[in-house]
Amino acid sequence: MAGAAADVLVKDGHIARIASGIESPPGITAIDGQAAILLPAFVDAHMHLDKTFWGQPWRPHQAGPSVRDRIENERRLRRELRLPPDVQAERLARQAIIRGTVHIRTHVDIDTEIGLENFEGVMAARSRLRDAITIQIVAFPQSGVVSRPGTADLLDRAVRDGAELIGGIDPAGIDGDAAGQLDVVFGIAGRHGAGVDIHLHDGGEVGASQIRMMADRTRALGLAGKVAVSHAFCLGMVDDLALGKLIELLAENRIAIMSAAPGDRPMPPLRRLRDAGVTVFSGSDGVRDAWTPFGTADMLERAMLLAYRSGFRTDDLLHAALDAVTRGGAAALGRADYGLAVGCRADFVVAHGETLGELVVARPPRAWVVSAGRIIARDGHSAL
Amino acid sequence: MAGAAADVLVKDGHIARIASGIESPPGITAIDGQAAILLPAFVDAHMHLDKTFWGQPWRPHQAGPSVRDRIENERRLRRELRLPPDVQAERLARQAIIRGTVHIRTHVDIDTEIGLENFEGVMAARSRLRDAITIQIVAFPQSGVVSRPGTADLLDRAVRDGAELIGGIDPAGIDGDAAGQLDVVFGIAGRHGAGVDIHLHDGGEVGASQIRMMADRTRALGLAGKVAVSHAFCLGMVDDLALGKLIELLAENRIAIMSAAPGDRPMPPLRRLRDAGVTVFSGSDGVRDAWTPFGTADMLERAMLLAYRSGFRTDDLLHAALDAVTRGGAAALGRADYGLAVGCRADFVVAHGETLGELVVARPPRAWVVSAGRIIARDGHSAL
Repeated sequence: MAGAAADVLVKDGHIARIASGIESPPGITAIDGQAAILLPAFVDAHMHLDKTFWGQPWRPHQAGPSVRDRIENERRLRRELRLPPDVQAERLARQAIIRGTVHIRTHVDIDTEIGLENFEGVMAARSRLRDAITIQIVAFPQSGVVSRPGTADLLDRAVRDGAELIGGIDPAGIDGDAAGQLDVVFGIAGRHGAGVDIHLHDGGEVGASQIRMMADRTRALGLAGKVAVSHAFCLGMVDDLALGKLIELLAENRIAIMSAAPGDRPMPPLRRLRDAGVTVFSGSDGVRDAWTPFGTADMLERAMLLAYRSGFRTDDLLHAALDAVTRGGAAALGRADYGLAVGCRADFVVAHGETLGELVVARPPRAWVVSAGRIIARDGHSAL
Repeated sequence: MAGAAADVLVKDGHIARIASGIESPPGITAIDGQAAILLPAFVDAHMHLDKTFWGQPWRPHQAGPSVRDRIENERRLRRELRLPPDVQAERLARQAIIRGTVHIRTHVDIDTEIGLENFEGVMAARSRLRDAITIQIVAFPQSGVVSRPGTADLLDRAVRDGAELIGGIDPAGIDGDAAGQLDVVFGIAGRHGAGVDIHLHDGGEVGASQIRMMADRTRALGLAGKVAVSHAFCLGMVDDLALGKLIELLAENRIAIMSAAPGDRPMPPLRRLRDAGVTVFSGSDGVRDAWTPFGTADMLERAMLLAYRSGFRTDDLLHAALDAVTRGGAAALGRADYGLAVGCRADFVVAHGETLGELVVARPPRAWVVSAGRIIARDGHSAL
């Protein structure tokens, strides 16, 4: 069993009471959960809403294997296709909703060619969906920062215009100047009180050294609890001694780690990170875009992949994988109102299954998705 | 597109004609495929039908991490639970059917404690399902061969009583006597003209050296085309030079490689194996058993996992993953009557999707599953 059977009373979009045998007050809609499992809604905390081909005809993958190959291939496709980012972002967000996601963090490409077009598109989609879900925006310099003069100003502008976080990408691998990129990114964050969430694909000691530099800047600027490192393959590559010290730094500076359970890159050691008190969270990453043909925007499937890639088999560890797509994501997003407790926002997923572990391995359809007390999807269909 | 639209005429369980605009002959049932994609049926060529908990209440995973831990934990659970292997085998086979599988190879535990009980159970399930699907049985010494005196006689007996293949497990890691186990296993195969399919989890050079020993015995006994190595993590661990030589040995001796796309062990290099002409196939491996809580017996999902773990993104490579769960499996099973061509057995899966690549990443429900011309499942429900 996932927990004892209970009724949940929702008022004004929040949980008013959880108890067995609550009488339905007049004027309140009663839903019979049919002994299904009620979970806190999913948090997809690493998306790329602006660049998806979702809803477009199948596009065979073309890019070469390196990060640089993919950036250049994407730039070419973007020029050819001219897909409207607001429409694409809304399409993918709606897919996430029917799979149970209520809170999203999305990285949005900003560079000197794109300017703020993708950012403005995602801002428009966020506005259209504001009664259904929340979307946090990371101003993401996909093409680099210091190697692309003019980018820093655009990032600063996006943060002033509504992006909650500033992003980064392989300060060493892409910009060839780790300190340079990190000084710009953390500088903007410090000035505006924004968060930081940096893509770090750089592996081994090259990646590890950049985590140390991020920890230094987090401490210096008082940004503890507002910084995340996405991917962090390097944590799955360094030796045990180096890993131990890195994990201490992450815990001390309350830096969170995002893993999308990469299929063919090293996984950060999720169990060890959790045991040390580091917030672990997850996201769909790219879904049907120039980077990958994979993805369904289903965070229950993502929990399965996290567990599968980490060798998690016991119930405790399957629950840890589920935690990364629920509470871990909410913690990374800084949502104090998240959870299954009185006073929390009424954000639920309801699914039929035997236990929480069984939900992770079987990934049944979502019977109901509820956001702030409003049913936004039912039986795999949008209710918006 | 997966291919041009066509009609398929089935007579006496075989494909009689493939063409556009075939008139439905009198007395023949016509099915409107509604522009869905017709695939050859799936081949799940590495199952453990006898040991699944499928259909039982959720059982939290308990075993320790080593192969030995899992064998001992399974033995304990088996004594406690006393699940009837024929019932369990049939349950899981029926789940495989609704996901599109028509041909199965299953390893069946045989040791001095179990005797032939599981083997007889799977034989009974095979008999009950014989009009729907084919099941090849591997007599599998789960607990070792030379370290468990008496096992060899039981294996020999199973092969005489209906097992098409003889199995093995980590000749070095479990028996501590690689030549000893392999001599017994290949000896029985040679005497009866049976096939061989050996579980090899042993990693690195320890695993690689056993592949060389299997190749020697395959050549000596004239078993080329009848031998498979399952898992073969070692092929993803040795250096490039050693790998090249191993792949040559596999190709020369027509030894097939089975990978179930392990989440946390090294993957054999599927692309390189295929390019060298080695048959690559796949299977569900354990599904909700004492070894793992994972698994759905869905070979389209398995194709996704193979691609995801191998970094396959282009259409060509997504098709290669699909090939492992269709033609590759049929080749390993020695089925000359398999395929989408006139004269082949009419074994199909029909699913709605845009292209073959899209089927792999999206894994839609199976609209129809057809075995030798008979509809055995429809829209995710059994039609048996």
